[in-house]
Amino acid sequence: MHMFRTASLLFRLWKASKIANTVNPLTDKRRTHKGNMENKNHEHYMNIALGLARRAAAEGEVPVGAVIVHDGEVVATGYNRREQGADATAHAEIIAIRSACAALGRWRLEECDLYVTLEPCPMCAGAIVNARLEKVIFGAHDPKSGAMGSVVDLNALPLNHKPQVTAGVLGEESAELLREFFAKLRKKI
Amino acid sequence: MHMFRTASLLFRLWKASKIANTVNPLTDKRRTHKGNMENKNHEHYMNIALGLARRAAAEGEVPVGAVIVHDGEVVATGYNRREQGADATAHAEIIAIRSACAALGRWRLEECDLYVTLEPCPMCAGAIVNARLEKVIFGAHDPKSGAMGSVVDLNALPLNHKPQVTAGVLGEESAELLREFFAKLRKKI
Repeated sequence: MHMFRTASLLFRLWKASKIANTVNPLTDKRRTHKGNMENKNHEHYMNIALGLARRAAAEGEVPVGAVIVHDGEVVATGYNRREQGADATAHAEIIAIRSACAALGRWRLEECDLYVTLEPCPMCAGAIVNARLEKVIFGAHDPKSGAMGSVVDLNALPLNHKPQVTAGVLGEESAELLREFFAKLRKKI
Repeated sequence: MHMFRTASLLFRLWKASKIANTVNPLTDKRRTHKGNMENKNHEHYMNIALGLARRAAAEGEVPVGAVIVHDGEVVATGYNRREQGADATAHAEIIAIRSACAALGRWRLEECDLYVTLEPCPMCAGAIVNARLEKVIFGAHDPKSGAMGSVVDLNALPLNHKPQVTAGVLGEESAELLREFFAKLRKKI
C-alpha cells in the first residue's frame, strides 16, 4: 500500500512536471494574440505551486508554494523560506511577488495571477493588493491567519484594489501536505 | 451625574496612561542590564525615521521612513523605494524588517520596536505581526490604507501576536512631508 502511494505520488509529480513544460497552443496568449487564460486549468498552476510547497517541506520549512502567471506563462515562483532565510517576510507569496516585479521590471503586477497553496496571511494579502495582482487562486483555507475570508477579508475593506479570489483549488492536497509536515514535526519534538 | 462619569473616565484614562508609561526598575531587564530604552524619547527615533522619509522624497518616492530599535540601538532602517526598486513590497517597514532580521540573524524580532512616519498598510502591519515586533510607534494616520486603526485594526483580530501601538508621534511633521510631496507632484503633472 505504501509503495503504491509512493509510486502514485511520483507519477503525479512526473505528470505535473510534464504539464509544466507544455504550452497549450489553443490557449497560449502569445499564439492566439489575446488568448484565453481563463480556460487554463487552475489545477495546472496549483500543481506547480504544490511542487514548490513540497520543496519547502523537504528543506524543513512550513510547506507553502506560490506561482505568478502572466499571459499564461509562469514568470515567478516562491516557497516559504522563513527559517532558512531568517526573514519574517520570506513567505512564498512575497518571494514570488518580488521575483515577478524583478522579472517584469515594474511594481504593478496587473494582468498577473497568483497561485498559492495556502490562503494568504494579512502581510501577503496586503502585498497582493499593493502589487495590484488581478487574480488570486489559493488552495487550503487558513483558519488561524487567513486574510482572504478566514480571519479577515481584505477584499471587504475599502482598499484601492480588489483582486478576484478563487478558493479551494487542490485545497485538500495543500491541507494534507501541511498536516503531514506538522505531524512529522510533532514526532521530532 | 454626567459630569461625574466624564471626570471618572478622564481620571481612569490618565491613570492608565501613567501606568503605561511607567517602568519598574526592578523588573525592567533593559534598564538594569542594557540601558533603558523605555526612557528614550520616542521623538528621537521618529526624527531619524523622518530623515529617512525626506531622503525618500528627494529620490522621488512617497516619503515614508522607518527605524527598528533593539536595546536602545538602531539596528535597521528603511525608506520607501517602490519606484526605484520596481518592487511592490519595498515599503519602508518591509525594508527595515528584512534588514533587522539580517542584522540579528533571526526572523523573530521580539524586544524590537519599529518607528515609522506613516501608519502601516495591511502588508506592513501583517509583516509586523509575523516578525513579532514588540512595539510600533507611528506618526501620521493613513485614512486610505492604514491597518492600525484607520481602514482596519489588525490588533483587533484574533492573530497570534499583538504589538503595542503608539500613534501620532511627530504625526504633524510626517503628514506635512506627505502633503508637500503630493503638492509638488501635482504641480509637475
